[in-house]
Order: sequence, then C-alpha cells, then structure tokens
Amino acid sequence: MTMIFKTPDAVVPAYSPTGNECALFETAWMRRLPLLLKGPTGCGKTRFVAHMAARLGLPLTTVSCHDDLTASDLTGRYLLKGGDTVWVDGPLTSAVREGGICYLDEVVEARKDVAVVLHPLTDDRRMLPLERTGEELAAPSSFMLIVSYNPGYQNLLKTLKPSTRQRFVAIEFDFLPRDREIAVVASESRLDAAKVAPLVDLARRLRMLKGVDLEEGVSTRLVIYCASLIEAGLPVPEAVRAAMIEPLTDEPDVRAALIELSGSILR
Amino acid sequence: MTMIFKTPDAVVPAYSPTGNECALFETAWMRRLPLLLKGPTGCGKTRFVAHMAARLGLPLTTVSCHDDLTASDLTGRYLLKGGDTVWVDGPLTSAVREGGICYLDEVVEARKDVAVVLHPLTDDRRMLPLERTGEELAAPSSFMLIVSYNPGYQNLLKTLKPSTRQRFVAIEFDFLPRDREIAVVASESRLDAAKVAPLVDLARRLRMLKGVDLEEGVSTRLVIYCASLIEAGLPVPEAVRAAMIEPLTDEPDVRAALIELSGSILR
Amino acid sequence: MTMIFKTPDAVVPAYSPTGNECALFETAWMRRLPLLLKGPTGCGKTRFVAHMAARLGLPLTTVSCHDDLTASDLTGRYLLKGGDTVWVDGPLTSAVREGGICYLDEVVEARKDVAVVLHPLTDDRRMLPLERTGEELAAPSSFMLIVSYNPGYQNLLKTLKPSTRQRFVAIEFDFLPRDREIAVVASESRLDAAKVAPLVDLARRLRMLKGVDLEEGVSTRLVIYCASLIEAGLPVPEAVRAAMIEPLTDEPDVRAALIELSGSILR
Amino acid sequence: MTMIFKTPDAVVPAYSPTGNECALFETAWMRRLPLLLKGPTGCGKTRFVAHMAARLGLPLTTVSCHDDLTASDLTGRYLLKGGDTVWVDGPLTSAVREGGICYLDEVVEARKDVAVVLHPLTDDRRMLPLERTGEELAAPSSFMLIVSYNPGYQNLLKTLKPSTRQRFVAIEFDFLPRDREIAVVASESRLDAAKVAPLVDLARRLRMLKGVDLEEGVSTRLVIYCASLIEAGLPVPEAVRAAMIEPLTDEPDVRAALIELSGSILR
Amino acid sequence: MTMIFKTPDAVVPAYSPTGNECALFETAWMRRLPLLLKGPTGCGKTRFVAHMAARLGLPLTTVSCHDDLTASDLTGRYLLKGGDTVWVDGPLTSAVREGGICYLDEVVEARKDVAVVLHPLTDDRRMLPLERTGEELAAPSSFMLIVSYNPGYQNLLKTLKPSTRQRFVAIEFDFLPRDREIAVVASESRLDAAKVAPLVDLARRLRMLKGVDLEEGVSTRLVIYCASLIEAGLPVPEAVRAAMIEPLTDEPDVRAALIELSGSILR
Amino acid sequence: MTMIFKTPDAVVPAYSPTGNECALFETAWMRRLPLLLKGPTGCGKTRFVAHMAARLGLPLTTVSCHDDLTASDLTGRYLLKGGDTVWVDGPLTSAVREGGICYLDEVVEARKDVAVVLHPLTDDRRMLPLERTGEELAAPSSFMLIVSYNPGYQNLLKTLKPSTRQRFVAIEFDFLPRDREIAVVASESRLDAAKVAPLVDLARRLRMLKGVDLEEGVSTRLVIYCASLIEAGLPVPEAVRAAMIEPLTDEPDVRAALIELSGSILR
Repeated sequence: MTMIFKTPDAVVPAYSPTGNECALFETAWMRRLPLLLKGPTGCGKTRFVAHMAARLGLPLTTVSCHDDLTASDLTGRYLLKGGDTVWVDGPLTSAVREGGICYLDEVVEARKDVAVVLHPLTDDRRMLPLERTGEELAAPSSFMLIVSYNPGYQNLLKTLKPSTRQRFVAIEFDFLPRDREIAVVASESRLDAAKVAPLVDLARRLRMLKGVDLEEGVSTRLVIYCASLIEAGLPVPEAVRAAMIEPLTDEPDVRAALIELSGSILR
Repeated sequence: MTMIFKTPDAVVPAYSPTGNECALFETAWMRRLPLLLKGPTGCGKTRFVAHMAARLGLPLTTVSCHDDLTASDLTGRYLLKGGDTVWVDGPLTSAVREGGICYLDEVVEARKDVAVVLHPLTDDRRMLPLERTGEELAAPSSFMLIVSYNPGYQNLLKTLKPSTRQRFVAIEFDFLPRDREIAVVASESRLDAAKVAPLVDLARRLRMLKGVDLEEGVSTRLVIYCASLIEAGLPVPEAVRAAMIEPLTDEPDVRAALIELSGSILR
Repeated sequence: MTMIFKTPDAVVPAYSPTGNECALFETAWMRRLPLLLKGPTGCGKTRFVAHMAARLGLPLTTVSCHDDLTASDLTGRYLLKGGDTVWVDGPLTSAVREGGICYLDEVVEARKDVAVVLHPLTDDRRMLPLERTGEELAAPSSFMLIVSYNPGYQNLLKTLKPSTRQRFVAIEFDFLPRDREIAVVASESRLDAAKVAPLVDLARRLRMLKGVDLEEGVSTRLVIYCASLIEAGLPVPEAVRAAMIEPLTDEPDVRAALIELSGSILR
Repeated sequence: MTMIFKTPDAVVPAYSPTGNECALFETAWMRRLPLLLKGPTGCGKTRFVAHMAARLGLPLTTVSCHDDLTASDLTGRYLLKGGDTVWVDGPLTSAVREGGICYLDEVVEARKDVAVVLHPLTDDRRMLPLERTGEELAAPSSFMLIVSYNPGYQNLLKTLKPSTRQRFVAIEFDFLPRDREIAVVASESRLDAAKVAPLVDLARRLRMLKGVDLEEGVSTRLVIYCASLIEAGLPVPEAVRAAMIEPLTDEPDVRAALIELSGSILR
Repeated sequence: MTMIFKTPDAVVPAYSPTGNECALFETAWMRRLPLLLKGPTGCGKTRFVAHMAARLGLPLTTVSCHDDLTASDLTGRYLLKGGDTVWVDGPLTSAVREGGICYLDEVVEARKDVAVVLHPLTDDRRMLPLERTGEELAAPSSFMLIVSYNPGYQNLLKTLKPSTRQRFVAIEFDFLPRDREIAVVASESRLDAAKVAPLVDLARRLRMLKGVDLEEGVSTRLVIYCASLIEAGLPVPEAVRAAMIEPLTDEPDVRAALIELSGSILR
Repeated sequence: MTMIFKTPDAVVPAYSPTGNECALFETAWMRRLPLLLKGPTGCGKTRFVAHMAARLGLPLTTVSCHDDLTASDLTGRYLLKGGDTVWVDGPLTSAVREGGICYLDEVVEARKDVAVVLHPLTDDRRMLPLERTGEELAAPSSFMLIVSYNPGYQNLLKTLKPSTRQRFVAIEFDFLPRDREIAVVASESRLDAAKVAPLVDLARRLRMLKGVDLEEGVSTRLVIYCASLIEAGLPVPEAVRAAMIEPLTDEPDVRAALIELSGSILR
C-alpha cells in the first residue's frame, strides 16, 4: 500500500518557521538540490513541505513509506487489464513526468531498493530510468525530491546508507518555540490561548523525559487534541490524561508519575 | 483472512461504564478525534464500541487484526472476475465511503503497512487515498476510526510506533468493579447473583496473579462460562476447574495451587 | 494440506470415560460453549470427540492442524474453474453451514490467523464472517467448536494467546487407568488380558520417565501395536523392543536402559 | 521435486538379514502396522524395503524426502491443462488407490505438514482424505506405509514429533556383519573376496571414528566403489583414498590420519 | 527495480585522474580483462567509468545493484504480452548482444545468483548462457564488464566470494587530491576557488574522522552542494551545516563537535 | 538463473595433470561411478572436466550452482506457451536423455532438494524419475555425473550431507606445481617464462598466507591476468598490485604487507 496525496496548489497551509528552514528550502530549490528533513514525530515536517510547495506554486505528491514499500510501488508496474498488460505509473514517476515536489515521508522505513531509484534523481543526471518500459525520464526543472525521517527511531537495520544520505542537503527540525506552539494550538483547537499555555508548558516538560521514561515526546498534534477535548467540554485532567498521557505510555508507574507531574503543572 | 462485522444499528448492546469512557468517547466523536482503547483480554472493549456505535446511531465495522493482515486487506484489491480485473473495497474503504465507525481490534497484531493507511485518516486530512484506483476518499463527517490493543502482550516486535500512537486519544480499560461484574455475569448466565458472587471474588483473586503465575487474568467471559455450566447442572468445583482454571494454565503446580485457592474461596 | 473426516453418524465408537469428561461435554453442548481438550499424544482425545459426536447424533468434521494451515484453508477460497473463479467452502465453513461439531486437532500448530477466524465463533456472536464472499454465516444451534492441543509440546512460539484460550471451556486428559487400558488393549489386539497386563504395567512405568529420559510417554496405541505383534506370533521381547522402545528413543544409552527395565518388568 | 520409483515386482533384490528384521516386517505386514526404519547412511534400508516388497509380491513406491517436500507433493494437486484444471494424484495417493508399499525415505527431511497426511493412514482409520477433490480414500488391505530416517542427523529442528513416531513399529538398522559385508562387496564389485576382506576391515575401523573424527562412518556403497576401482585396475592406495577417505572428510589432519591408518591396516 | 543508464557516446564527461587508473583501465581493455573498482561513496568511480567509456568510444550500460536484484533482472525474463510469453532482454544481455561496457555499481548488494551469471563472462569463455531461451551468447570483442563496491560497508553477509573476486583486475579509489578537488568543486558550483578552498580543507579534516565519529567521510558531491548553496546566497555557516554536517550524523554530540570544528577551520 | 555450457566435443582443452586424476577419472568412468572434485578457487577443476570430456569424446553440460538453484532448475518444468503448458527439460534431464557428462559446479551452493535428485542417479538404479511428467529416465551408459565444491568455504549451513557425499568417488585438487604453473601462465599470457617465474613464486608465497591473512590464495587465473597486463605494457608493480593484491584484500594493513612482500620477491 502506498499513500499518495496530491495537494491542490491553490491553498497555502499556514506554517510559522522556527529557523532558516524556509530560506534554505528556497536556496536548495534554486539549485535543484534534493532535501532531507530530519526530526521527531509531529513537529511539522509534513506541514512545512505542504507550505513551501504552495508558496512556490509547485504541485506536491506525498508518499508515506513503510516496511513493504518497494521501488515498483514508486515507479510503477504492469497490470493486467482486459487480458492485456498495461503500464501504470507510480507516484514518483508521475511526479517526474509532470514536475513538482515529490515528498517521501519516513523514507528509512521503505525497502532497500527504493534508495537505488533515488540515486540517479539526486545526482547531476537528474534522471529516472524505467527499465521495464525502456524509458529514461529526465526530471523537468520543476521537479524536486524531498525525503524525511525521524532519527529517534534510527536503528541498525533501518538507516540511510551514507551513499544515499550524502545525496541530500539536510535540515534538522524540532518542536515549535513556546509562543508559536501556543498560538498554533489555540488556533487549531479554538481554545483560549490562556488555557492553552499550561498545556504547552506541560508538553515541553514531557518532552524532556524523552529517552528517559518516554520513547518520544508529546507531539503538537496531541496538545491540539487535548485542547479540543477541553474546548468541547471535557474536564482538564480527563482531557490531559486521554490526549497527553495515555497515548505516551502503557507503564503503570510512568503513567502515575506523568499524572502527578501534570497535576503539579496545571494546578 | 479479515473478519468484519457490520452490527445492525437497531439494537443497543447493554454496557455499564466503569469510568468516564462514555463521555470521553462522545467528546472525541464531537471533535472527530480517533480513539485508541487499551486493556486486557475480555474486559469489554469490543462490547463498549458496539454499545457506543448503537447509542450514536452509527454503523459499525469491526476488523480483528492478526499477523498476516495487510493494508490491502483493509483498503481493497483487484480480483479476477470473468477474465477481467474488478476492484473490491476492503472493510476500511467501505467504512470511509459509507460513514460510521471502523474498529480495528488488536491493531498491533497487523502488519506494519497498516499504520501507514491509518495516518492520513487520523490527521487533519481525514482522507483515504487509494493508490491503485487513483481515488482519494475524503472521510465523511460520520466516519470515526477506533483501534484497540492489549498492552499486556506488548513486546519489542509488536508495538505501535509513537508516530502512530500520537494520532489517537487513548482510553485505558480494566475489568468491571465487583458489583457490576456480578450483575453482568448473573444476567448473561441466568445463575443467581448470590451464586455468582463467589465466582467473581475468585476471578478477582486470580487477576492479582497476573504477571506472577498467570500470563493473563480471568476474563469476565470465563466467569460467565463457569456460571453457565453451574446453572446447567455441573457441580461448582467441576465448572470452576473447566472454565476458570484449565483455560488459564497448563502447569501442574500452578493448576494445583489454583484449585486449592478456589476451594478456599468457594468454601 | 488439510485433513477432514466426516464421521458417518450411524456408528458410536467405543469410549470408556476416565472422569467427568462426558458430563462436562454434554453441559458445554447444552450451553453451546466451545471446548478445549488438553492432553498427551494418543490418550484418546480424538476418539472421545468421535464418541460424543455419535452419542449426540452430531456430524463431525475433524481438521488436523499443522504449521502451514491458514485461515483460508478453514474458511474456503476462490478457485479457477473453466476460466472463472468459483468459491469453495473450507471445512469450517461447511460445518457452520450444515451444523455439527467441528474439531480442530492440535490447533496450536496452525498459523496465527486461524485464531482470528475462531474468535467470532466463540463469543456471543457465534458467527463466521466470510470477507471474500461478503457473507456472514450465523452458526446454527447444532454447531459446536472443539479444539485440542498437547501442552507437553508447548513452547514460546507455539502457544494459544490468552485472548484465544479464554474463549473455551477446557478439559485435561490423561492416560486410561490400568484396568481400563488392559481391557482396551486386549480388545483391540485380540491378545489375552493376562498377557496384556504386564505390557500395560511396562507402559505405565515408561510414562513416569517422561520429561526425564523420554520426551513423551508410551501411547496406548503403541501398547496395542505391541500386543498385536505378540498375538501374531512375534516373541515378547522383540515385540516390546519394536513397538514400545524403538519408537520412543534414538539414544543408545536410554534404549539399553529401557530394554533392561522392560526385561525386569516382563520377567 | 519428488522422486518416485515403482519397482517392477518381478525381481527380488538380494538382501541378507542381520537380525529379526524380516520376521518383524512380515508380522507388521500381517497386522497392517506401519513401519519406521532407523539407521545410518548406506546400511541397506532401501534395499531391505525393495527386498521385502518383492518377497511379499507388493508393488513399491519410494519417495525420497527433502526440505521442500510438502503434503501436496505426496497427495496430488490441480494442474492447468488446456485452460482447465485437472487433478493429478501424488505418489502417496497413487499407492493408496492401487495398494502396495509406500516408502518415504528420510521422512524427517520433509515439511511438517507431511506428518499430518500420514496420521489418518497410520491409525485405525487407515484413510487418506483428499480435501481438494472431496474424496476419502480407504487404504486397501494391500497398502502398507514405511518411513525411514537417520537418527545420526537428528537435530532440534528436524525430528519426528512423538505424536507421529508413536504411530509406527520401529526397526533399528546397522551395518552388515563382517562376513556378510565381504560377500556383498565381492559380489557387487567382482573383486576377489580375499582382496575385499582388508577393505571391509578398514571400513569397520573407520566406523569406530564416527562422532569422534568423522560425522558418519563409511557406507558399504563406498567399499563397493573402492573394490570396483581396484578391480578396474587402480592401485589399492589410490582407490582407498578416492573412495574411502576423500568422501569422508575435508580436514587435512583427519585425512592424513586416515591415510596412515589405512596404510597400517592394508599393509 | 533495476536502474540502467545508456550514456550517449558523444559526450566525454570530465575526469581528472589521481593515479594510474586510466592506463590500467586501457590495458585491461586491451586484454579484455574484467575490472573491479573499490572505493568510498562519491569518490568518482561512476564518473570515471563514464569518462573511460566515452574516451574509448564504447556505449555504457550502468546497473545500480541493490538487495533485491536477481540474475533474471540482469539477463532478462519472459513477460506476458497479448496472451503470449515474450522474452525481454535484461541490461546485461543487451550489453553482451550489442557490445560496450556493462557497469554493475555496488555489486555486493545484489543477490548471490548474480555472481554465477558473471562467472562465464569473466573467464576465457567470455560467454553469457541464457538457459531459458536456450541461447549461448558469445561476448563480442567490444564487450567489457566492470563492477564496483565500497569496502567500507563490507560485512559478513555482503562480500564478494573469492571465486568471484579473483576474476577481476582491481583498482582502489580514493578522494581527489586537494587542488584537484578545489578545481572540480569550483567548476561545478560556480563559486570562486578562493572560497571553495576552505570548504575542501574542512572536508579533508572531516574525512579523517571516518571510522572514529563518522561512518563515512564527506563526499565531493556534498562539498559541491555546499558551495552551490553559498554561491546562491546562503550564509557560509548555514550552508556548511546543511550540506556538510547534517547529512553526516544524527548524533547531537558529534554534530556539535563538527560545527565547532568547521567554525575553527572556516574562521 | 542456471548456467549451462555445452562444450563442443571437437576441441580438447589443454590440461596438464598434477597427479593421478586422469587415471582416476577414467577408472571411475569405466565403472560409471559418480565423481566429486574438491579444491580451491581457480585451481583448474572446470578445465579438468572439460579436458576429460573432450578426451573421452563425451558431450559436457556444466551447471554453475548458486543459492537459489532448485531441483526443478535441473530437471525441468512446465511453462505456459500459447495458453498451453509445455514441459521443458532442465540441463540434467537433457544430459540424462542424451548421455554425456553432467557437471554441477559448486554443488553445495544449491538448494537442498537438489541432492535428492542426484541420489537415484548415483546408486545402482542410475535413474532420473520425473514426477511431473510421469517419466522414469534410465541413464544411458554414456552418462556420468560429476560435482565439485570448495572445502575452504564449507560452513555449517552449506555442506554435503554424508548420505550424498558417500555416493561419490572423490578427488582432491590443488594448485599446479611451480614449473607447470609457469608454463601455463606463459602460454596463456604470451609473457616470457622468465618474466612469469617470479610472479608464480609470488603467488606461491601468497598462498601460504591463506587462513592467516587471506581468505583464499591467489588463483592461477590472477597470475595470468597479471602477466597479461605486463605483456601489454603495464609496469610490473602496477600489474601485480592490480591483479594479485587488490583482488585479494581490502584491509589497508594486509595490502601494505603484501605490497612489501611482493617488492621483496620481485626485486
């Protein structure tokens, strides 16, 4: 299963930069250099790509990678139709044919042969050869390749080989600064910024526990969930537990500690 | 093999809440937030979902996940029919097309690519892209996604990645409180509540052994089985052994200890 | 390969109970509770099921499970016939359609997705959904599900998950008591009971070595083999070695000890 | 790949018994009990079966088992012929239909589902159910099942489960006694018995090294090879090295020791 | 997925040799000896092959190898077309039929059966047998086989067997000397050589960390990326971080050290 | 991929024996005994077989075995042609039908079921049963089976089982003696024997390092490569490094030592 999203190019999704990522993106785009986005779950990488694509007026194709994603899922395959075999472009091939940004989310999850497909697109050849159809597609100047991954999950089996990594300009992402995050959560949840602030403070506290008691810090998405539940009438402690604690851990001890911690911060 | 159940929306299965789970469900439903149910075997998660679906008048599709369940089992596939290939929706696609609750039971058991299918349905896109048909289904406002799993089984190979977990509001489930459980067992088994009480007491004792001598505590279902056998005429010790001890362990020592324990409680 | 046996319902195979198993079976049948039979190789589980099925006048479908048995082997699949695809029921589906007992022998050997097929048949839904045909079969009141396994083989990879185990009323089986076993062996082998007795005594001694020197004790079947060879004219020591020692071990030391032991008992 | 041999029933291959194996075979045959032959490589198990089959006037089907042998290889499968699917019997099914001995050589090598096929043929049912054709073949009284394996290779992954082993009467095989082996080698190689004798003595010495320096002792076949090479004119030391030493080991030290040993014995 | 590039033979890609590699290539070509190129990521192996192919006027077929590349991907396979099966040459077969250089990049990544295909092409037979079509293609005198791999990745599972390695003349590659690298980066990035020099110095410093803090040194490609970003207006430290530090490591400590190091060198 | 070579029987490839291998081959051929060739990479096993085949006037079929080679690759399979299934002989079947030598190179690399195919061809049955076509091919008296392997690679997973090994007469191969090797290299490379001699001396020194610093010694093929490069004009040290050092090792330390060693020998 490959997931593809073609974002309509009319809307520019809101995005508030935290560093030089927009300038870097635009410079990379000027020189047609491929981009690697690194950062934790839910810190806004996908939103950033959508924002930049809209800003530059480029169509965007997003592919969420997973363990079973093969090169053929990206490039295309022959299917049987009416007793005959017909070639059907995959999302990467479509993006190369039509131009625009192709974004491979969590690329380390994909099968190893995917890297091979990306190599000729990421050096001076800028080309996608389709062995099975005999075509060699030259990427148009409007084509740009972006990949992302979460270094926090990186393990021995799932890494980008240096021969692949060294084909990308890379940007490190992190969570939004406090004020930005409060504004974003308030806007998305319709809850008062004043009521959002302690939730963001709690999230920032919980993120410090990453690698100690928690595998991963709280995403901004979960803070928005929490604020949404509160805005819809759920008591604060119940909303915090359901949206900011239970999704993080199954360990009774850790959970108890988080509940106590959240009680002290939200008091 | 995928198991799907479309519960007819006329009946509202009985369910007696033990905490704020009904309010939490309804608030999540108001904001269309996806829900994650955590809890041990046989504590009523499936019944709870059936109850809430009926109460909210929503059709319910249940998929029991297992080791071989792939994304295609959920979204659909092309099948050969009369020499031609025809697309057949999977249960998740049907639920997205027609609205209602789609409930993936024991979701950690499924193959890894399933998580990828769920991601676009669980963020602000609320969308199910079908690469193979070229469709992008927007989930109707009547669509809600619920997943469950049993943290007791959690191991290194079978966990939800944080990038998936952090897309759900989560509820922790546990067994019913004593009086509730007695009432439920009596009602389902047609055995007198007075005769059910010691069985529930025994079950509550046995649940304390979880992680010590037993892999999992006694489910309410087994207590109902036991009461049913007694109601049908089987002597109490034989019913207890057949329904509340033999299904829990194969270890002769543990079994002997459980028989002695049950004898002392049921005396 | 799936093995199915439809026992003709006219004959009632002989079976002499060793405990409350017949009453327990009948009570479970009255309440339509699914049954789990536990016990060592060759202690009569299969014969017991055949006996009870015939006694209750129920058709019996037996499926011997193995490492490669999948859910589809039980429920059915589409086969190509004359250029078209035709659905063919598996043995479980046939049993659900037509009623009667479906007995899955050594169920832990089967693939993991089999458990998922059994779940909806073993709770209050009593239903077999066939995703591929779009059918949902309600089990008729004449349907009963029985599974068996040998806890002696149980290992980390091959166990029933608690969520599956806790769906069954369970019966523990063991070998026949001495007098019963002598009668059964004499009857099946046509050898005098007086000559059978020392063979049964030897078998009972050998069973004590299980877990020490032997992986498994001698089955009643092997005692019958031994008695048959003697009845056909083979000298006792040769028959004992061929039917009760060589099938148990390949270790020269253990074999020598068993030969000596049998010599001392049969003297 | 399944290997089948239908031995023409006219010839009775020579076989000189070393113990009670012929009487035991005939007694098992009288009571239609299945037989398990255990013993090292090249000690004559296959020849013994061929001999007994011819002596009893029974057609013989031999299947050499290997890692990829499945139950379907034994029972049969549907093949596409002229656009239609046609059932083709496997060797076991043919043997059950037509009667005679079916001999599965090195049965532990086969896949696990093979055991399941054998179970109903090896208890009082004596039946081969063919799920895919819907047939249930009753084995004719002329049918007998024989399996063999080499306990020397036995490891944790490749064993017969007790539930399978305990369905067979078992015979342990070993190499021929000295005089018999000399006679057999002389007869097969056309070399003088006097010249064969030291070769057999060497073989008997080498067999004592099994488990110490050698994985397996020298088979009678290799002694015949050696004698054949000598009879054809090759010098004795060269023949011994090529047929009785190089096939046994690749270790330079062990080889040197064996050459020295053979020199001292053949001097 | 196999990636093939047929470089048009008109252009001669620029390449500045660092040793005797051009003479060695030409001598090997004169004697039609196969060539093995060893060296780190991005040191110019692929460019070297393209350069030599153009210089010798030979068509070039490049195949990037990966974990799933099989012998059939190289030689060809039968495909269904219009109901019939048609043989389609793979890239190696095409190269053998039409002559020229066939270059297998990162050959150790490919499946083991690939080596077998290469053997008859790399000894005095110079032949490609196609079992499935029954053809035996003699390589024309214009055919040359080149393979490459990166010894830095070499591990127990992924190596060339001696029986394969010993069929090639081998060349060890390393990064360009300082002045050459400055010239190449300046030319490709359009940045002043004076501004490129410190970047190359930094790269040379970072390469010394290989095996200590870094898995692999900085490729020339990344230095070109960095210079391109600077030329396009990005501040030097931001360009260095994005193109020469973030692509190398995800470790916060290592990154901080690299930033400090680059600050001290670029000051 | 299976590689087959049918050597035209007109040419007799040059081969200079190092021991009794030719006489042994001919004696084995007289008695139609199967042959096992053992020895290191590039010591001339394949050439020896080609030589003997031509000398005896026998057609030769060579199959290079690899990890994915199955029994069906050797015996044949049904292929779809024009909507019908047609049986196509594999190389072993062809050789059995038409007579001549069938040589399986590096047989331990092949899948386990290949051994089973070889068994009936290597005992007194000399027969190839084709289960799928129902044929039983008796090998003609002109048929001989030869297998080879390199004991240096032997590991726990890749060995010949004793039951297979003990079906072959075996010959151990080693490199040519000094004078022979000089003559062969001079003849194949067209370089003066005087200039070849130090290269062979170097090779003989390097072979002593096998198992210490090198996985495998230098093959005669590499010495020929080296002499060819020198004859074509490359300086001796460059040729030695490219053809006799770089193909042997990737370890910088080992390489430096080998360069020094070669310098001292070639001085």
